[in-house]
Amino acid sequence: MVVIMKRNASQEEIEAVIANLSAFGFNVHRSSGVNQTVLGAIGVKPGFDHRIIRGLKGVSDVKRVTEAYKLASRAGRNASTIVDVGGLRIGGHAITVMAGPGSVESEEQIRAMTAQVACNGASLFRGNILKPRTSFYEFYGVEEGRLELIREAADRGELKVAIEVTDVARLDMMSEYADILQVGARNMQNFELLRALGTSNKPILLERGLSATIEEWLMSAEYVMRCGNTQIILCERGIRTFESATRYTLDLSAVSVVKAKSHLPVFVDPCRSTGMRNYIIPLARAAVAAGADGVMVDVHHDPANASGAGLSALNFDQFAELIVQIRDVAKAVGRSLTEGGETNGPRQ
Amino acid sequence: MVVIMKRNASQEEIEAVIANLSAFGFNVHRSSGVNQTVLGAIGVKPGFDHRIIRGLKGVSDVKRVTEAYKLASRAGRNASTIVDVGGLRIGGHAITVMAGPGSVESEEQIRAMTAQVACNGASLFRGNILKPRTSFYEFYGVEEGRLELIREAADRGELKVAIEVTDVARLDMMSEYADILQVGARNMQNFELLRALGTSNKPILLERGLSATIEEWLMSAEYVMRCGNTQIILCERGIRTFESATRYTLDLSAVSVVKAKSHLPVFVDPCRSTGMRNYIIPLARAAVAAGADGVMVDVHHDPANASGAGLSALNFDQFAELIVQIRDVAKAVGRSLTEGGETNGPRQ
Amino acid sequence: MVVIMKRNASQEEIEAVIANLSAFGFNVHRSSGVNQTVLGAIGVKPGFDHRIIRGLKGVSDVKRVTEAYKLASRAGRNASTIVDVGGLRIGGHAITVMAGPGSVESEEQIRAMTAQVACNGASLFRGNILKPRTSFYEFYGVEEGRLELIREAADRGELKVAIEVTDVARLDMMSEYADILQVGARNMQNFELLRALGTSNKPILLERGLSATIEEWLMSAEYVMRCGNTQIILCERGIRTFESATRYTLDLSAVSVVKAKSHLPVFVDPCRSTGMRNYIIPLARAAVAAGADGVMVDVHHDPANASGAGLSALNFDQFAELIVQIRDVAKAVGRSLTEGGETNGPRQ
Amino acid sequence: MVVIMKRNASQEEIEAVIANLSAFGFNVHRSSGVNQTVLGAIGVKPGFDHRIIRGLKGVSDVKRVTEAYKLASRAGRNASTIVDVGGLRIGGHAITVMAGPGSVESEEQIRAMTAQVACNGASLFRGNILKPRTSFYEFYGVEEGRLELIREAADRGELKVAIEVTDVARLDMMSEYADILQVGARNMQNFELLRALGTSNKPILLERGLSATIEEWLMSAEYVMRCGNTQIILCERGIRTFESATRYTLDLSAVSVVKAKSHLPVFVDPCRSTGMRNYIIPLARAAVAAGADGVMVDVHHDPANASGAGLSALNFDQFAELIVQIRDVAKAVGRSLTEGGETNGPRQ
Repeated sequence: MVVIMKRNASQEEIEAVIANLSAFGFNVHRSSGVNQTVLGAIGVKPGFDHRIIRGLKGVSDVKRVTEAYKLASRAGRNASTIVDVGGLRIGGHAITVMAGPGSVESEEQIRAMTAQVACNGASLFRGNILKPRTSFYEFYGVEEGRLELIREAADRGELKVAIEVTDVARLDMMSEYADILQVGARNMQNFELLRALGTSNKPILLERGLSATIEEWLMSAEYVMRCGNTQIILCERGIRTFESATRYTLDLSAVSVVKAKSHLPVFVDPCRSTGMRNYIIPLARAAVAAGADGVMVDVHHDPANASGAGLSALNFDQFAELIVQIRDVAKAVGRSLTEGGETNGPRQ
Repeated sequence: MVVIMKRNASQEEIEAVIANLSAFGFNVHRSSGVNQTVLGAIGVKPGFDHRIIRGLKGVSDVKRVTEAYKLASRAGRNASTIVDVGGLRIGGHAITVMAGPGSVESEEQIRAMTAQVACNGASLFRGNILKPRTSFYEFYGVEEGRLELIREAADRGELKVAIEVTDVARLDMMSEYADILQVGARNMQNFELLRALGTSNKPILLERGLSATIEEWLMSAEYVMRCGNTQIILCERGIRTFESATRYTLDLSAVSVVKAKSHLPVFVDPCRSTGMRNYIIPLARAAVAAGADGVMVDVHHDPANASGAGLSALNFDQFAELIVQIRDVAKAVGRSLTEGGETNGPRQ
Repeated sequence: MVVIMKRNASQEEIEAVIANLSAFGFNVHRSSGVNQTVLGAIGVKPGFDHRIIRGLKGVSDVKRVTEAYKLASRAGRNASTIVDVGGLRIGGHAITVMAGPGSVESEEQIRAMTAQVACNGASLFRGNILKPRTSFYEFYGVEEGRLELIREAADRGELKVAIEVTDVARLDMMSEYADILQVGARNMQNFELLRALGTSNKPILLERGLSATIEEWLMSAEYVMRCGNTQIILCERGIRTFESATRYTLDLSAVSVVKAKSHLPVFVDPCRSTGMRNYIIPLARAAVAAGADGVMVDVHHDPANASGAGLSALNFDQFAELIVQIRDVAKAVGRSLTEGGETNGPRQ
Repeated sequence: MVVIMKRNASQEEIEAVIANLSAFGFNVHRSSGVNQTVLGAIGVKPGFDHRIIRGLKGVSDVKRVTEAYKLASRAGRNASTIVDVGGLRIGGHAITVMAGPGSVESEEQIRAMTAQVACNGASLFRGNILKPRTSFYEFYGVEEGRLELIREAADRGELKVAIEVTDVARLDMMSEYADILQVGARNMQNFELLRALGTSNKPILLERGLSATIEEWLMSAEYVMRCGNTQIILCERGIRTFESATRYTLDLSAVSVVKAKSHLPVFVDPCRSTGMRNYIIPLARAAVAAGADGVMVDVHHDPANASGAGLSALNFDQFAELIVQIRDVAKAVGRSLTEGGETNGPRQ
């Protein structure tokens, strides 16, 4: 932590700040120029609230030197984390394709979709049973348990299943059927939920909030990790900007930033961010080229009649085409869609 | 709803869209030019999902004509709503001042603060017992029940009490002690919580989400209203933008927009948006001048030692000064801090 | 400047950075902890490009301690600047009202408007003769010289005149007729223009760019000041955000930030930011309450038939009402619309 | 154009709007429901200012049906434009690599760089001689004519040259030496410059403004095209958002949107957007995978000592690696770095 004193800070004020920092166990170095004094406080104090110092008299600014997260940081753990989901290795050489409907509608749909997803080579089924919508007047997804049905259909296709959780109350029930628990963008800072997930033994897929900085996103991951669960997959799915040609702005630079700052694997969802079917394949290719460890897409057997986000879902033919295209891009960046395909590591 | 067909849409496609709209009960008017056909679908269908039409072949775009909300809209109800909180009238002639600590720390704090807040003429106490933070390493507020204590202290000062709720599980318990249930920015689209609040008999204070448009905010209000609870107060507290000199960007235009589009009262919180104590009073004055019905501020008996957001809290002297200053501005715009002070209505 | 070294920086790297800083004349203090070294470089080097240090081996980050601007900073000059425009004092006790059409259309318009503006008590006429538009198909303002006409009409009403300049070539011609040279948001970082204005003897009204941070805005002011012209008035007119209910988001917190960081006067333009006539008066009131030194509004004798931004212009009755309302708010915050009205200073 | 009347609009108001639209030559269709009337105005009137209608009494909103640009629109011209720069075909099968220093420093630098750029297979040299900076205290690039030098060095390496123009006065001089005239982000809406470029016979490289929507960017292209110059290459280089981990947020979705809406070629600049050397290669790969027609990168023989944006420049080894990597990704999406390499067209 670096403490920048005000230009006109008095000796007493400076000494009070130094005493305060020392009391918290920091090693303090003082640099005084003609106009201004800067204090360097060296030491790692995970529980320390730097605002205590910012509020002291004579203090102009406090700048953090270390990142606000530790367990999620690559500074703490250099090797990339590979999340093992019952044999499906996420974050390694292979790129994971996760697919499913925006919301589950019927038994037939689940069967058709898991079969299709599996035969095209995806390994992870997205089986959302809830679909919270922004308007009361729009479609609100079926809530009751199709979980067993999803589990069965997925098992038949040898798919792993990710289920979105939105509250602590349903966590146990969902954990019985899910291989991965997904946290939607709106819950990225739902700390009660994060705490509960921190004690779960299921891997977590943590979406970035629409207005969350990458740092805040990693701080949410840190939060879960501090509670004991370190199996976390991040997912970029667009941030809110002034551009309205797409629903949100997909931030593919975030893939590079996450790879530099953290050891956790990162997915990209090009459907929710763009909101437009014909932008999905190019952006899925771009995600893989940027270094993403996985791609999450909406697939629907009949997008034109989908009750919900049909506009941003691929039909089966388009999904098959997506797989072909991202396979080629994966190869171009030294990866593959299946483990063990290539021997050289991913390109940096 | 206006349906804009693609330039090269075929007659069959156009007719299929018309048939579809008619089947849903819309009255359809067709306008065909040399290059393009536009369909006007007249009729109010609250439950209608316009994406069904957008997904049809030959459709280029669908534009909503009416607002996405109805109960919250001034188009439906012209008179401004006054929320009556046990005699405290919010949204009328008087401007409401709501004040309290960022988070409740101790019994002494509660007593000192309610006394101070009351004697300065505020009418609403903000008694947050939870303080979810963005980082695990920062202060996490005391969770156990100081609710009874807050209730007693508030009653002594004849203050009403607003308490933030973050999940459905604690709703009943909190409702026993609170006069107003507050929904924080992060929960603005927590639809499970909104639904539960829709069946509550307590007024709701609904903060705008950090990346929520005004329309989405009003749609969240609509959601609660559709569930039966129409006693809603909105609260603007800053949106996320590229500007970093303040924590968030306080959107005071939102006060004008809400007043034009909706009949609901609207508060402004200048503390959370700016994050800086010395910007609070000017922006509180501006909020009142812009037409806000209330101002919500953080007050602390010892901001320098506050465990939490002390930087953005007023001390007691500053709070007293705030009251004096906004009283003068309120008068300048035809309002007052107490009901019955002036007889002329608020300026538009 | 604080230089944060990487965790694994070697002794040679650290020493090379120290040598580099010393060579530039900085006084360097080294703080080494168990994991990390931080260097404090004390000294004010106006011409120093900190990126030279950031590019050195072993450097993790460089944080500026002092502001990126000096002449514009309140740290350098504590007293607020009053810009004297031939007797009209901007930034003092009185709040300046600047008004005029979005673009000048005809001789009659100019006469009607200057008369109206003057009789209502405004002191500054906005006489734009150019109107660059975002689309080729939209109205493009008359370019030829109505400047003489504007000058005459303004003199008749004893108004000062502000004219927008967009390029260096027309600067001399415009300077003959204008009292203030206005730099539009799109030219805030047109450094050739800023340099030319730096050698002008006319005061500059510098609008904030749509995507400019407050720091960048003050850096543009600094740029002009470094070239010799210190008579600068800032003008907040909205920033681009995700909110689309208003054209731009008026950032009234910027008034407080500018007042804290700089000694320059600041205006607010509520017309361009909102794009809607009925939001102008409440936001003009809010600007004055927030501490702005002036308000700039579009006025038109017939807004419904204005060729250009008629939607965001007040008609004459509304303008008269605006004056009445902001006069009351000005009084409430210890100011007035005319110099010498009140003796107590503006409220902080 | 669709005109939505207010709920309580009178018959006279509706008829006045219809008469107005008819007088402008529109074909008007009226759709009246129980509460509301909607008017469809069919007809293409390029010079029409829709705000004239929005300002009429009883009008609630006006929605454009057709795009605000025509010459730049794919609706008007389906085949993709290939810009031919003296034999270098931009927008065809081959992906163009444009490289050069952030600003030209010396004769040696120019020679070393053009040689290096050419031998690695890039075809376009970026020879900026001006470097406008945001702060007076930072490096301001040499202004006098190194243009001849650049021209000679580029010719030796058989490279085409792009030069940034910032004002009309220098246009003729620069045109003598440049193959492509580049318009920087800050000048995207400098309409005087755009008009002058509209009469130039050189192709234009038009960067997207930092806060410009894709629609506004295409409107600027339209502006140039309306003036007669249809040889335009677009360049995405990041937009301003709340995220601060990168300098700007690279909007790769914009590539897909531009490809869908327009027939013009589009480049991506991953250096300026990220501001960080180690993010450039992954994002250049992603740009190519997303469908970009070219990539623009900063290269420097000694980035650590670059006077200016050295942090975001590749050194020669990194540039060679970039070429290898994007060649592989280009192949994966059915393209190449040289014309005639592959016979199958680019993937959609």
